[in-house]
Amino acid sequence: MKTRFTERFQLKYPIACAPMALVSGGLLAGAVSRAGGLGLIGGGYGDTEWIAREHALAGDANVGGGLITWMVDKHPDVLDVALSHKPWVFMLSFGDPRPYSPKIKDSCAALFCQVQRLSQLELALEAGADVIVAQSSEAGGHGMNNRATITLIPEIADILAARAPNTLLLAAGGIADGRGLAAALVLGADGVLVGSRLWASRESLAHVASKEMAVRLTGDDTDRSIVFDILRGLTWPEGYSFRALKNTMTERWSGREEELLAVVEEERVKYQAALAAADYSIGHSTAGQAVGLIRDIPTAAEVLERMDRQAADVLLRMSNRT
Amino acid sequence: MKTRFTERFQLKYPIACAPMALVSGGLLAGAVSRAGGLGLIGGGYGDTEWIAREHALAGDANVGGGLITWMVDKHPDVLDVALSHKPWVFMLSFGDPRPYSPKIKDSCAALFCQVQRLSQLELALEAGADVIVAQSSEAGGHGMNNRATITLIPEIADILAARAPNTLLLAAGGIADGRGLAAALVLGADGVLVGSRLWASRESLAHVASKEMAVRLTGDDTDRSIVFDILRGLTWPEGYSFRALKNTMTERWSGREEELLAVVEEERVKYQAALAAADYSIGHSTAGQAVGLIRDIPTAAEVLERMDRQAADVLLRMSNRT
Repeated sequence: MKTRFTERFQLKYPIACAPMALVSGGLLAGAVSRAGGLGLIGGGYGDTEWIAREHALAGDANVGGGLITWMVDKHPDVLDVALSHKPWVFMLSFGDPRPYSPKIKDSCAALFCQVQRLSQLELALEAGADVIVAQSSEAGGHGMNNRATITLIPEIADILAARAPNTLLLAAGGIADGRGLAAALVLGADGVLVGSRLWASRESLAHVASKEMAVRLTGDDTDRSIVFDILRGLTWPEGYSFRALKNTMTERWSGREEELLAVVEEERVKYQAALAAADYSIGHSTAGQAVGLIRDIPTAAEVLERMDRQAADVLLRMSNRT
Repeated sequence: MKTRFTERFQLKYPIACAPMALVSGGLLAGAVSRAGGLGLIGGGYGDTEWIAREHALAGDANVGGGLITWMVDKHPDVLDVALSHKPWVFMLSFGDPRPYSPKIKDSCAALFCQVQRLSQLELALEAGADVIVAQSSEAGGHGMNNRATITLIPEIADILAARAPNTLLLAAGGIADGRGLAAALVLGADGVLVGSRLWASRESLAHVASKEMAVRLTGDDTDRSIVFDILRGLTWPEGYSFRALKNTMTERWSGREEELLAVVEEERVKYQAALAAADYSIGHSTAGQAVGLIRDIPTAAEVLERMDRQAADVLLRMSNRT
């Protein structure tokens, strides 16, 4: 598939790998970029040693980076360290990107801003975003509820067409195969940002037991809540929640977060022990609603090739029905 | 657009009008069917006089009907009355369709079963559904949270392809223009069931002040909760909630349903007075996330023609990019 996104960034596929914190390391980001997509290393909360190591592991691949914006608000120096690795593009998610735009643009990285709401789009445009990543509630990991790809993408595409026609748009959330890629493109996106499907690839740093659990489950088996944030001792800003595979922890505590807080110490011990033992019936598996479309654990290159081929096939087939 | 749905039902467009309770009357359903789509009269909770009147208003148009399944469980005779009007197709939503399938099939109506979860799909297949309507959380009105069109449709399409290849699939939720129609088709649907966009058409029975409010709002401005069910005194089965435009009632009570129950008598008085006065800052407006794509109040025929033309255009344009 050829789009404005493949042209602008000289890609083979209109597919970027989400900078998933502690999952999108140098191996995954490098594999995606080498295969013809755009790989982003998931700097997440800003562990500078981890970021340095993963950039080294990416080798000579042309990768990007990403950080959580509200974390940069607390530790602005982390952004300097992340940019010192010369990421090709840089993505800010979950907060106001405007204070950091000049520094990112000075580094020559293209600025990607992730939004979940139309109100956040204003901030991203003021920051001079080169690419808007519109993340819907389907997505795994942190995000917001109550907006879905099929309405969010055309609505934002119309706003960009009127106000910032050179700003590109990527769809994030629920896209795991060529049908999802084709849908995102006809909805008005220039490409997609893929999380769960690449989380469940060979090169991702997610544990294999967690990936194998994802292969067995359906799209009905995910839950969005703040249960795992409470267990991890993370205080996210108001409005954000975390989508993960359902397990005994979400079944017990999702919707009962106040009660969980009352016994958090003992539940946290259980949770941390489970993660250490790779027991994902208690520990979290960060995958989104697309999990029902994930039936194997291929290489990242295979994921990209399959998605692109299936998208082209389905678009050709449907255009014959007009 | 030509699909298995247009072929099976001899339609011009792969578009059905959702049987929206008390909104999809004979004028709307008749207009949709005459224009080349499939109009369904929204029997909802089973007011048999209303159903009779609206079937008469549809005139000679070939329309279908629909009822809420758990209501039929309580008043099975309503189904006989609804079928006595000879609906062309009949749709059951929100409950187990199996007990009513023989009666519907005996009437020669095609059986449409609406589902929100994979587990419900089993019941619909056992009932011998001719058409599965997969309704996602984006939809206005009653439904479930936590599944979106972009993941639900391909997942169900794969199950149907393997187990019931002659059963058709319609996507419902978030589809209001040709981009959404094209997306649903590439995701694997045979057509779409449209609610909000036809709710905001001239022929719908929704109040014009409510429709005009929808035109002004964005897709960020809807909320899914049981606030309006509480105010209406409706007890829906576990798991269902109601998406409507945000207003002062949802802003105040969504997420605080227990507190609302404590003062429900006085709030209900306020709510009923507001509805009588067409004040939708308090009364409910039943529209979904697609509201941000609704910018006018055209005729139903115009809605269908626009959607089909835009879907064909975008599919042809994208197929040139493969």
